[in-house]
Amino acid sequence: MSLTIGLDAMGGDAAPGIVVAGAARALESQPDLAFLLFGDLPRVEPLLGQHERLRTRTTLRHTPDSVAGGAKPSTALRQGRNSSMRLAVNAVKEGEAAAAVSAGNTGALMAMAKFVLKTLPGIDRPAIASVLPARQRPVVVLDLGANIECGAEDLFQFAVMGEVFSRVMLGVSKPRVGLLNVGTEELKGGEVVRGAATMLRESRLAIDFHGFVEGTDVTEGVVDVVVTDGFTGNVALKIAEGTAAMFTSALRDVIRGGGWRAKLGYLLARPAFAVLREKFDSRRYNGAMFLGLNGVVVKSHGGTDAVGFAAAIAVAADLVRKGTNQRIIDEMGATGAATIPVAAATAS
Amino acid sequence: MSLTIGLDAMGGDAAPGIVVAGAARALESQPDLAFLLFGDLPRVEPLLGQHERLRTRTTLRHTPDSVAGGAKPSTALRQGRNSSMRLAVNAVKEGEAAAAVSAGNTGALMAMAKFVLKTLPGIDRPAIASVLPARQRPVVVLDLGANIECGAEDLFQFAVMGEVFSRVMLGVSKPRVGLLNVGTEELKGGEVVRGAATMLRESRLAIDFHGFVEGTDVTEGVVDVVVTDGFTGNVALKIAEGTAAMFTSALRDVIRGGGWRAKLGYLLARPAFAVLREKFDSRRYNGAMFLGLNGVVVKSHGGTDAVGFAAAIAVAADLVRKGTNQRIIDEMGATGAATIPVAAATAS
Repeated sequence: MSLTIGLDAMGGDAAPGIVVAGAARALESQPDLAFLLFGDLPRVEPLLGQHERLRTRTTLRHTPDSVAGGAKPSTALRQGRNSSMRLAVNAVKEGEAAAAVSAGNTGALMAMAKFVLKTLPGIDRPAIASVLPARQRPVVVLDLGANIECGAEDLFQFAVMGEVFSRVMLGVSKPRVGLLNVGTEELKGGEVVRGAATMLRESRLAIDFHGFVEGTDVTEGVVDVVVTDGFTGNVALKIAEGTAAMFTSALRDVIRGGGWRAKLGYLLARPAFAVLREKFDSRRYNGAMFLGLNGVVVKSHGGTDAVGFAAAIAVAADLVRKGTNQRIIDEMGATGAATIPVAAATAS
Repeated sequence: MSLTIGLDAMGGDAAPGIVVAGAARALESQPDLAFLLFGDLPRVEPLLGQHERLRTRTTLRHTPDSVAGGAKPSTALRQGRNSSMRLAVNAVKEGEAAAAVSAGNTGALMAMAKFVLKTLPGIDRPAIASVLPARQRPVVVLDLGANIECGAEDLFQFAVMGEVFSRVMLGVSKPRVGLLNVGTEELKGGEVVRGAATMLRESRLAIDFHGFVEGTDVTEGVVDVVVTDGFTGNVALKIAEGTAAMFTSALRDVIRGGGWRAKLGYLLARPAFAVLREKFDSRRYNGAMFLGLNGVVVKSHGGTDAVGFAAAIAVAADLVRKGTNQRIIDEMGATGAATIPVAAATAS
């Protein structure tokens, strides 16, 4: 079945090059994809010309406007009505595209997505979720930066969405959900995390709530879903990225500075290192989902390449095909939240 | 000059063994140290008997009480009046010891230290500070968990203390100070971090305020001092530890699973790996300071060994010898804070 993805051709450090090359790459593994590409025609068209098959599967819509990387979300929302980013989001709202993908300004994309698509029934605020490497198996972490300050109810909703995501998208049969805190004891942390813990423990949902987890538990893979506010989640994500980068570069430095023995050793062990590189390749984990929106929007890392952008497209297609949003609506219906539509409530 | 350190012999996963062995080790490199050791005599005395020189430099005070690792700080404060931890802190208050070191329950130690020693003039709340590895040079991070919720004024005070620490203890001549946030732009983050940024920009102090830093900037070493609230700092610290541990174990796994080539490669490159291990050895960074107290208290990691505990003792001795607390008092006096004593105010 053909699936059309709306793409912001102008978002990201190396746009539009990586967007077009990423789409071509995604099409290789999923030939039924089609694209609605928004961007600056004189720049995008020549690139598209290099990919014969992609050209036949792509509708190009010209717009000279794009959202600057450093633009304030409110400014982007007001002044970017004809930007490539906004038009890609509009395409989802209007049913022209099943999902939108952008590597542009995260805050602007979230502001536009919330404004245009609104949230799912029962969800007050969307969250940014991503899959991160952990010792045992990858873990879903949210919120990664959409909501700087959160209440207990927000964290509860994030937990519901993250659990659905883990089940539907990663195939974990009974995901364990943890709340990120400074310790695992019940009395740890402030009112918000403790309130969310109470809500999760007393919830009618069949969520496997593990309780509080600490930073070290995240990478250990003690739980499948880690729930936190957007401030802490964003810092945690970037600290993990930074630590991995520091480690990798220190490894390279000691090999380089270690003389012939170290260099020969590295050459011999190179296939093993390749396995390691593959395991932690951030491109594999590219594509952060805006969970809780009434539509599918995926944010690619701004500094990614074609491989990473193709991964973000694959995430968007997967979210649509697996009906993730409907599963979240059903689950929120089961919580007995007052705001759910009648259809979802009677189905529960 | 002889310097007496009060030790909680019963705190830590492997206490009292690592405490006694750590003290013996610290004494090897600093022969002028002396110890006031609080703990369970029948358990501690035989261990002390194994270290001839340490025995001559140690006064042992018996107490059967100790603070449980999972005890609530308020309970420990109420019920632990005769605990080894409390007596070590009391010794600082009474001038019997120049500093106290414990590998026990962090929350209990902080509660006791605040109750017994009070804070320095101008400081409302003490913070836990530690030195972490970063790409260029180690970075001071605070607060790592003493204050779950902080106001702008708290973060401002942490910045002043962290800057003094970097200068006095690490010898950085003009430390750059950053506030941890979800982005570097001025409009990022909530009211608290933005309020603290304003205070730091407008301060009369000669602090080199860099502005906001993100998680990746911490490990890059963009600044020398990273200031954050205790919730975010604690999560960040443990995420960094967890990521490093995950990376190390993945490296070991690929070498082990990589056949003879990988194993031979590892053997050849082993000296290089040893350099790496040394660089990231958490024992080197052991010893978190409780900054802002009217006395020196250092918390060792609970799971450390003798090498790590000796490092924590060295940190305590260094804090005392360099007169860090007086430097903080002087610096806070220079801010013109209302609470400073007359002596410090006229000196500014």
